[in-house]
Amino acid sequence: MSVTLSQVRKGAYYDSVVLMQLQRALLALPGISDAGAVMATPVNLELLEASELRPGEQPGPDDLLIVVRADDQEAAQNALAQVDELLSRRRTAPQGTFRPKSLEAAVRQLPDAAWVLVSVPGRFAAGVAQEALRLGKNVFLYSDNVSVQDEVDLKRRAADLGRLIMGPDCGTAIIGGVGFGFANRVRRGPIGLVGASGTGLQAVTSSIDTLGSGISQAIGTGGRDLHTEIAAGTTLQAIDLLRRDPDTRVIVIVSKPPSPEVVGPVVAAAMATGKPTVVNLIGLPAGGHVRNLHFAATLEDAAALAVRLSEDPPTLEPAQVASGGRRFLRGLFSGGTLAYETVLRLQYVLQPLFSNVAIHPWQALTDPLRSQAHTVLDLGADTFTVGRLHPMMDNDLRVRRLRQEAEDPETSVILLDLVLGEGAHPDPASELAPAIRQAGGHGIQTVVAVIGTESDPQTLAEQVATLERSGATVKIGLEAALETVVAALPLEARSIPVEVPLSVLDETPATINVGLEGFAESLAAQNAHVVHVDWRPPAGGDERLMGILARMKGTQG
Amino acid sequence: MSVTLSQVRKGAYYDSVVLMQLQRALLALPGISDAGAVMATPVNLELLEASELRPGEQPGPDDLLIVVRADDQEAAQNALAQVDELLSRRRTAPQGTFRPKSLEAAVRQLPDAAWVLVSVPGRFAAGVAQEALRLGKNVFLYSDNVSVQDEVDLKRRAADLGRLIMGPDCGTAIIGGVGFGFANRVRRGPIGLVGASGTGLQAVTSSIDTLGSGISQAIGTGGRDLHTEIAAGTTLQAIDLLRRDPDTRVIVIVSKPPSPEVVGPVVAAAMATGKPTVVNLIGLPAGGHVRNLHFAATLEDAAALAVRLSEDPPTLEPAQVASGGRRFLRGLFSGGTLAYETVLRLQYVLQPLFSNVAIHPWQALTDPLRSQAHTVLDLGADTFTVGRLHPMMDNDLRVRRLRQEAEDPETSVILLDLVLGEGAHPDPASELAPAIRQAGGHGIQTVVAVIGTESDPQTLAEQVATLERSGATVKIGLEAALETVVAALPLEARSIPVEVPLSVLDETPATINVGLEGFAESLAAQNAHVVHVDWRPPAGGDERLMGILARMKGTQG
Repeated sequence: MSVTLSQVRKGAYYDSVVLMQLQRALLALPGISDAGAVMATPVNLELLEASELRPGEQPGPDDLLIVVRADDQEAAQNALAQVDELLSRRRTAPQGTFRPKSLEAAVRQLPDAAWVLVSVPGRFAAGVAQEALRLGKNVFLYSDNVSVQDEVDLKRRAADLGRLIMGPDCGTAIIGGVGFGFANRVRRGPIGLVGASGTGLQAVTSSIDTLGSGISQAIGTGGRDLHTEIAAGTTLQAIDLLRRDPDTRVIVIVSKPPSPEVVGPVVAAAMATGKPTVVNLIGLPAGGHVRNLHFAATLEDAAALAVRLSEDPPTLEPAQVASGGRRFLRGLFSGGTLAYETVLRLQYVLQPLFSNVAIHPWQALTDPLRSQAHTVLDLGADTFTVGRLHPMMDNDLRVRRLRQEAEDPETSVILLDLVLGEGAHPDPASELAPAIRQAGGHGIQTVVAVIGTESDPQTLAEQVATLERSGATVKIGLEAALETVVAALPLEARSIPVEVPLSVLDETPATINVGLEGFAESLAAQNAHVVHVDWRPPAGGDERLMGILARMKGTQG
Repeated sequence: MSVTLSQVRKGAYYDSVVLMQLQRALLALPGISDAGAVMATPVNLELLEASELRPGEQPGPDDLLIVVRADDQEAAQNALAQVDELLSRRRTAPQGTFRPKSLEAAVRQLPDAAWVLVSVPGRFAAGVAQEALRLGKNVFLYSDNVSVQDEVDLKRRAADLGRLIMGPDCGTAIIGGVGFGFANRVRRGPIGLVGASGTGLQAVTSSIDTLGSGISQAIGTGGRDLHTEIAAGTTLQAIDLLRRDPDTRVIVIVSKPPSPEVVGPVVAAAMATGKPTVVNLIGLPAGGHVRNLHFAATLEDAAALAVRLSEDPPTLEPAQVASGGRRFLRGLFSGGTLAYETVLRLQYVLQPLFSNVAIHPWQALTDPLRSQAHTVLDLGADTFTVGRLHPMMDNDLRVRRLRQEAEDPETSVILLDLVLGEGAHPDPASELAPAIRQAGGHGIQTVVAVIGTESDPQTLAEQVATLERSGATVKIGLEAALETVVAALPLEARSIPVEVPLSVLDETPATINVGLEGFAESLAAQNAHVVHVDWRPPAGGDERLMGILARMKGTQG
């Protein structure tokens, strides 16, 4: 027969380390078989129930709940009677070091600190981060349970100030050789990372180290940075930093599943760096590469690709920048799957992109007879083939459309497939050649992806020769053709409104730590100057009073 | 000054080759600058307008519209006056060969034909295919513009009869060494393909040939086969055929973007073949492999992977088959991205799979405190960390959940991550080890994916040793751990209700061709016995009469 007793402390603040240590101390007491010390959120109450530590009382989510299960009533009562002493035992500052009580005092003590690490509970975190921004600092915001609105406000302000907010819910970063939060000990090296994913960054940096290479910087952004509301605020700043960082020769971008509409700007920024960049946005298509971008399938694949690129950097033609005029791709396909694959591989690289084989609703072409911006068209789709032979047999439709695109002053590159084999037209190249030559006369480059074998009845080599004589760039297979297309198109120019100074990436940065003491200890172990703030919630955690205090300091609203 | 004149022929049937040839003949006449001969669908009318061939009349979609633009009125009138003669010129049968007028007559002429190739216009195609099924044949259905309901009916009937319907809108196949429809000339070899994608199959087979290997069979399914309504009817039959085909040593499955709910059964069937299988379902995650399945990123990647697997086939442990009891994975993660990546990579391999980091809505875990079927849990999610340290620092939550899963009689394998580094728990392995040992006592295998470096403060080698002493299987990195997990889980048994006889894949099959004459010529050029049906629409194309005729023959309703 066991006895379960509990105790509630209303609206009191205790940090998570204190609660873990209290729970362990209670468990170590004689006659205690299990114990819990948690904030009484619905999930935590259910977790206690699962461990048969269901409390008799009904506390609220801001209350501390302490439960013990004991062999008998006396042991249980004895344990709960010691809670005060166990809690106060932890309160004494270790080693008698001077610890400022406020962020402002810490900044006076370590004015050179570029970074503030914030790991206080979620509901206090945005306030501390705002204060850090006010004091001119960059922020590593480990805390989770921060609202989306707070994240939007913080990142908008940081962008205006040219400061970086890594987080909220940022588990890891390596800045100037020092790991923030959770970070693996890895070699310094040529690979710089940006990650909307903590363990993603850890897995990739660890793999890079295992493969014998190393890390210049690893910039965390928080797991929501590539969501619609945040619109990649930190990611875009971080990519721009790595673009300017002379120690970064290869860039890796890792993210949890992003919102599709945020991917385009991130990919455009990555392309604008001109540095070889590995993109691993979880859930997005992988494989292949266009211009400087390489799409990795897995975290380990991303690491291997980055190491390979750092050892054997590809040479890139400098890109032109678009300024109106000829800037769009027009893909005119006879093969439906080739059109799909083209949409799939280019949808985030060329924006906006429209198609009659759209993958996302916003890509749907309004009128298949008129191209808009970048357009990929399957001319073998059902609408086009009523009473008409497939475009692999009859080139009339494709030739007419080619002429139409050639007359469009926004067309920069035309992409065609040419599928050879049994059943197909005996000499498609000769029928397409005049229209390709006409497009060339307008300054439009035509790229042709040929699908076929040397044994095909049309004779592969002759088809290629005919196309090349008409001025087309001919590639065997789709991948090589897509690479050529993207390299031939001008880049869209983009820029960050206020640059984050490169000095945020300086070697062994001085830091101020607010929250989990373990993080300060880890920074000190890495030889970084660190001041730990002996933080307590303002106004004892009273939300109303906190609001008044914040407004007085001008850090909110 | 040019003159445009047009002519309408109401409700008449002409096949697409005839129309293409009429248009070309008109263009060749003196004084004609452009010409069109098309069925007057809305899209075709717009296409004529784009070529400045807008007709004066308003014909309906079943009418034939003939338009010419000429230098003067006389040339235009002269051209239109020759239409009848140009159309009839084509009507004479070439070379005086005997051509049956019906499918039934063709079957009497070539009773051994296992295949009927159908390329008549869409609205007649389902009727011809139904008749072919009634006559015991398998069907290559090239025609497009066939309704989804007709496809459902055809494939359901074929499945009951143990017959194969490749299509509708099936562009290509290679059966017993003979290309149907559009097909590249490729070497024979060990690689068998299934494709819900015509040019996808052509691109992969061409690449395989270019890489020096060859094709056993390439079975088309039609582009909609992996849509919800069709539910992979033909694909599942085709995979089962390739499983039994002794000449197929490696399988490749290619598809246009599938409906997500159809992917699971296809992947399960592929796994059940036991043969190395390359999966390239466009738009689905690529990279990595589990058991016999390898996920390709691009069409060319699929070809390269297949060739490599055929040259160096991996050895596989024979799989157990699940029969209730211990059969589910329980993944308990401290790293959110590792949990995401696990859902991403296993979601179609292990079904049903639930998670608190679901990628699709149907994967959402009802209650994060209770596992259902295969479950992947991020224990660092916001709900779990209110007032509690992250599971990388505090193992209490994970140990309790581990014990809970160990008590579940359906748990077969537990997957844990162990993320080392600065900031993390100094010795997580020792805290997890007792619960891993307890799970092992219930016959549950625990697999641990370790993320870390040799320089990490916890000492990687010691952590691994501690875990292994507790009975866990330890892998560095997630990929290797996922492979181990899938290999350890029992397979779900599946089977095809009525097997398609392997004889459909016999060498150089005899075929009956209904529709485009060019396909018969191509079959003959490949030394296949072929009878071409001199097909005309039943009842002159009158839909009401056609319905009555079909019911009399018992091929509809």
